[in-house]
Amino acid sequence: MRNRSVLALAVLIFITLTQAAGAEADREKLLKDPGVYATFAVFKVGDQWAQMEKEARASSVGEVKKVFEKHADKVAVDTYLLRGLSERADFFIRVHSKEMLDNQNFLVDFMGTTFGKNLKNTDTFNGITKALNYVPKFPEDLKTELKTPPPQGSPYVVVVPIRKDAEWWLMPQDARTTLMKEHTDATVIYLKTVKRKLYHSSGLDDLDFITYFETAKLDDFNNLVTALLQVKENRHNKRFGEPTLLGTLRSLDEILEILSH
Amino acid sequence: MRNRSVLALAVLIFITLTQAAGAEADREKLLKDPGVYATFAVFKVGDQWAQMEKEARASSVGEVKKVFEKHADKVAVDTYLLRGLSERADFFIRVHSKEMLDNQNFLVDFMGTTFGKNLKNTDTFNGITKALNYVPKFPEDLKTELKTPPPQGSPYVVVVPIRKDAEWWLMPQDARTTLMKEHTDATVIYLKTVKRKLYHSSGLDDLDFITYFETAKLDDFNNLVTALLQVKENRHNKRFGEPTLLGTLRSLDEILEILSH
Amino acid sequence: MRNRSVLALAVLIFITLTQAAGAEADREKLLKDPGVYATFAVFKVGDQWAQMEKEARASSVGEVKKVFEKHADKVAVDTYLLRGLSERADFFIRVHSKEMLDNQNFLVDFMGTTFGKNLKNTDTFNGITKALNYVPKFPEDLKTELKTPPPQGSPYVVVVPIRKDAEWWLMPQDARTTLMKEHTDATVIYLKTVKRKLYHSSGLDDLDFITYFETAKLDDFNNLVTALLQVKENRHNKRFGEPTLLGTLRSLDEILEILSH
Amino acid sequence: MRNRSVLALAVLIFITLTQAAGAEADREKLLKDPGVYATFAVFKVGDQWAQMEKEARASSVGEVKKVFEKHADKVAVDTYLLRGLSERADFFIRVHSKEMLDNQNFLVDFMGTTFGKNLKNTDTFNGITKALNYVPKFPEDLKTELKTPPPQGSPYVVVVPIRKDAEWWLMPQDARTTLMKEHTDATVIYLKTVKRKLYHSSGLDDLDFITYFETAKLDDFNNLVTALLQVKENRHNKRFGEPTLLGTLRSLDEILEILSH
Amino acid sequence: MRNRSVLALAVLIFITLTQAAGAEADREKLLKDPGVYATFAVFKVGDQWAQMEKEARASSVGEVKKVFEKHADKVAVDTYLLRGLSERADFFIRVHSKEMLDNQNFLVDFMGTTFGKNLKNTDTFNGITKALNYVPKFPEDLKTELKTPPPQGSPYVVVVPIRKDAEWWLMPQDARTTLMKEHTDATVIYLKTVKRKLYHSSGLDDLDFITYFETAKLDDFNNLVTALLQVKENRHNKRFGEPTLLGTLRSLDEILEILSH
Repeated sequence: MRNRSVLALAVLIFITLTQAAGAEADREKLLKDPGVYATFAVFKVGDQWAQMEKEARASSVGEVKKVFEKHADKVAVDTYLLRGLSERADFFIRVHSKEMLDNQNFLVDFMGTTFGKNLKNTDTFNGITKALNYVPKFPEDLKTELKTPPPQGSPYVVVVPIRKDAEWWLMPQDARTTLMKEHTDATVIYLKTVKRKLYHSSGLDDLDFITYFETAKLDDFNNLVTALLQVKENRHNKRFGEPTLLGTLRSLDEILEILSH
Repeated sequence: MRNRSVLALAVLIFITLTQAAGAEADREKLLKDPGVYATFAVFKVGDQWAQMEKEARASSVGEVKKVFEKHADKVAVDTYLLRGLSERADFFIRVHSKEMLDNQNFLVDFMGTTFGKNLKNTDTFNGITKALNYVPKFPEDLKTELKTPPPQGSPYVVVVPIRKDAEWWLMPQDARTTLMKEHTDATVIYLKTVKRKLYHSSGLDDLDFITYFETAKLDDFNNLVTALLQVKENRHNKRFGEPTLLGTLRSLDEILEILSH
Repeated sequence: MRNRSVLALAVLIFITLTQAAGAEADREKLLKDPGVYATFAVFKVGDQWAQMEKEARASSVGEVKKVFEKHADKVAVDTYLLRGLSERADFFIRVHSKEMLDNQNFLVDFMGTTFGKNLKNTDTFNGITKALNYVPKFPEDLKTELKTPPPQGSPYVVVVPIRKDAEWWLMPQDARTTLMKEHTDATVIYLKTVKRKLYHSSGLDDLDFITYFETAKLDDFNNLVTALLQVKENRHNKRFGEPTLLGTLRSLDEILEILSH
Repeated sequence: MRNRSVLALAVLIFITLTQAAGAEADREKLLKDPGVYATFAVFKVGDQWAQMEKEARASSVGEVKKVFEKHADKVAVDTYLLRGLSERADFFIRVHSKEMLDNQNFLVDFMGTTFGKNLKNTDTFNGITKALNYVPKFPEDLKTELKTPPPQGSPYVVVVPIRKDAEWWLMPQDARTTLMKEHTDATVIYLKTVKRKLYHSSGLDDLDFITYFETAKLDDFNNLVTALLQVKENRHNKRFGEPTLLGTLRSLDEILEILSH
Repeated sequence: MRNRSVLALAVLIFITLTQAAGAEADREKLLKDPGVYATFAVFKVGDQWAQMEKEARASSVGEVKKVFEKHADKVAVDTYLLRGLSERADFFIRVHSKEMLDNQNFLVDFMGTTFGKNLKNTDTFNGITKALNYVPKFPEDLKTELKTPPPQGSPYVVVVPIRKDAEWWLMPQDARTTLMKEHTDATVIYLKTVKRKLYHSSGLDDLDFITYFETAKLDDFNNLVTALLQVKENRHNKRFGEPTLLGTLRSLDEILEILSH
């Protein structure tokens, strides 16, 4: 219990500090606005990295930070550690910007560093944020509940890519709204402990949605997903996860430290 | 915003310049005519490339350009950067010619360069262009709308390979025309911002179609694909993407520069 | 920069606080209580390990043991040999703790040793233990039978990850209880020879359940699974195994000895 | 156009020359008789080949030719270039003989050469030729049409492995004959431009059939496959391709030249 | 023809010689009794093996033979060459013993030799032999036919792993017996030319059965499998092969000779 609150505090301080920084991309807007492009780039450290000289690895860390700084006016970047909790990768980067090209240019520079050249890019998910589709037609009390402020400074992250079946897309809008209301009802009691964000991916990737979650309570999150498996909309998930990425929010410094010592 | 128009301009200049070159394959005809063979060859740079001497990499760039020039009278080639937006590959090449053998000979020479030997060919799609199948039976007003000139100089490219199910192919031609009219109606409002091209692949690959798109507005493209998911023809897509390739049009020089610095 | 020191501080505080807890993690409680987080991390030794100097391998063994000791107050760890009975991996580690973060921190340290750097992490399954779902509604005689003490000191382990279909989750709780009673009835005669443990994974991994078994009699286990294939609940297993991990319980020392001689 | 006829001529000369050689396996019989075993072995050149000394590669070419000569009295071998048109491999070898063991012995020797040790065997398909199953029950006019002489000296090859579903195999023989007549009717107009050969693989591989095609007109071949997708038998193809191998007939010398320069 | 009988003779001699050796595991009993554990371990030689010094490879052969001798009192081992007929692997080993742990200990020692360290274990199948399930209920004449002595000294081996669907397992025992009688009737005419052996794998692997065949006539075997595809039980094979392993029985010496020259 105490663990969790200390880590939550640390993350809160971290967020406050980064928001203070002036010239950066307007992080808050990028994280809230519709029409923002996101790229989730997932990486595994290659075999040769461990064989490199310690000094070469250390100087590469500086190179990586310069790339982050160089693009800071265009992209908002978050970093997450997967190692230990996923066999697919060691960490992932979430990039937000107003133009997909800015995501690409940042990632091309990152992958061009000595560190980047030693990474294997195991998964990449692209998406765009949009205004809420179904919520405007929900009853007022549900709309009010959805205003519950999400938790801040949670240590855990889960990313679940989703693809719907043809029947979902061919359903009349009203029928989909009914199913999404049932879906949303099931999530209400978790609004306080699980923070959610949705990206639309149709045509930008082999997905329809990227669902992103932050929480300090993985038991609640397990209950939330179990509840979502029990609503009728679940019949239309052709892909749910594969991969499900479970990790922890960590600063770039901490990730570089872990992967290069 | 500025980003997008600068890139669009660069692409336009690039296209103008390459079209000026006299002795080359009649690029415009190859890109418009039916009966043209296309090969999409997708590549990832291997681990050993980064370990090579800088000079060796530089001299390899010259070798690649000579291969492009040597085959310029037979094949029309376009190059695209995937790195950062797809985990599957770093770039792809689209080759058009009047004979599949010319595509193969060009690619064999390309893969025989020092640079080519350091590439992993992660995907290859083969197709042929054909006269339009369904359009002749569409109503006149739809035919007129389909004459909307497509956008030029768009920075983004998306390639979506498609395979239809047996029910699609066994449907009477009329029923398919009806479904394709519904499909086409859904795309009309995007004709101004999304340029499309279709290749037939049955028997030439594990696909039925390669669908190719250029756009400057990925939000429109996401809406277009979402609209296509909502027409009945979508029930018959056994494979849609896998991979969906999202990238940017870049000159050969720019791609070689990015991958060999 | 400041970010890092704050986070570092947080981690320090976190370490200090938990070390106050004193002796080793209460293994027995972790193995019995609900709300415990488990990570199954599966590894294959890489090609380069065999090429290393004998001495380097030996000193690496000491390094691994120190990591196990360092985390002994937070995590309970079991080790299993797969080599010979599974092509996927050489061994796996089962980690239990009260916070998923502790599993990750232990595994990150383990994978950071010289030995760890030479491993390929082929599979990872995450789960949480919970109070029994269906048992409370079972008839008394079945409840009594379920109290049969499981066998101790069995040499074999089998891990079977399971994913249920949408119909399972959408079934009324009563119907599921009926099916689970039929399932449980089929297992009663094996309670004496097969020890079982269940983990819930929905949302924490691309699974719904990790089922874990220990036995000295693989023929009984084969009969048990065959019996479970013959109950109606089996219709709802979208994934059953893939991989099924069959191995033997072995001490860390024995595994390191086998893999490093 | 010229391209195609020159290649066709080269292939004709090559065939004539190889048939002139006296002591060889009776190639014509092996290619026509039922009861002949065929192995399609598909290879990709490994990374280390390009790093070898030029001389070592050249001397390896001689070694390969000796293996071909050594087995020439038992096996008839054809060679095909895939590079450029398939990401899966660089070339494949089709081996025919009266005993599967002879195919294996030849391939074991081939894979034991320095060149062979640098190859990755990406796919292997095994089959046996049989007397025609359905044709004897076809109407006389169709039987007559099936005697159309196939084209000779075609430059392109396509190999499509096929697996039928259980319903196909459980259908009464008459019903299957009706479906195969519809299938065959659809192919008649392509008999002049597409040469076909069929191998039976059930139990010898994870396939039921290997279908093999030679043509100079890939547009006709694309139309042929599209026509076959539109007959009812297509409903019973559980696997169609995956991989579809599209390549060109090339002499061993030409393939070795391309892959070792 | 001569080929086949010479090989058959060699295999017969080999079997006779190995059976002569006194202190060995009672091979005949292990191959006939129920309750015997079998492990099929499939291997591909790694890239580094070919680069090793000839002498190192030769001395490694001796090391392998010692491992076989060391375990000869507990396990009965057969060896098979796949190279040339399967892209998945070069050879496989079938191990029988009274305790799965003995299979593991033998394979761990084998994989710990210099040769073993250079192998990639591409597939492993575990199973147990059992008394016949359905035969006791078959009519007497079928029972009599099943006593046909199987062929001896056949050169070819085929291994087909099988997984049944839920409907198979949920069928009443009588219905399954009826289907298995139809299945068995289809095999009777092949009893003289195809030797069969069955292993049960549910819970020990991602399979339900390992089916093992020896034959000198692959054309008969192809007909046998085609006949089995035409019985109703085939509707319930969720997995049939994948991989189907086709190879030849070869002595350990011959396999080591082929793979290490």
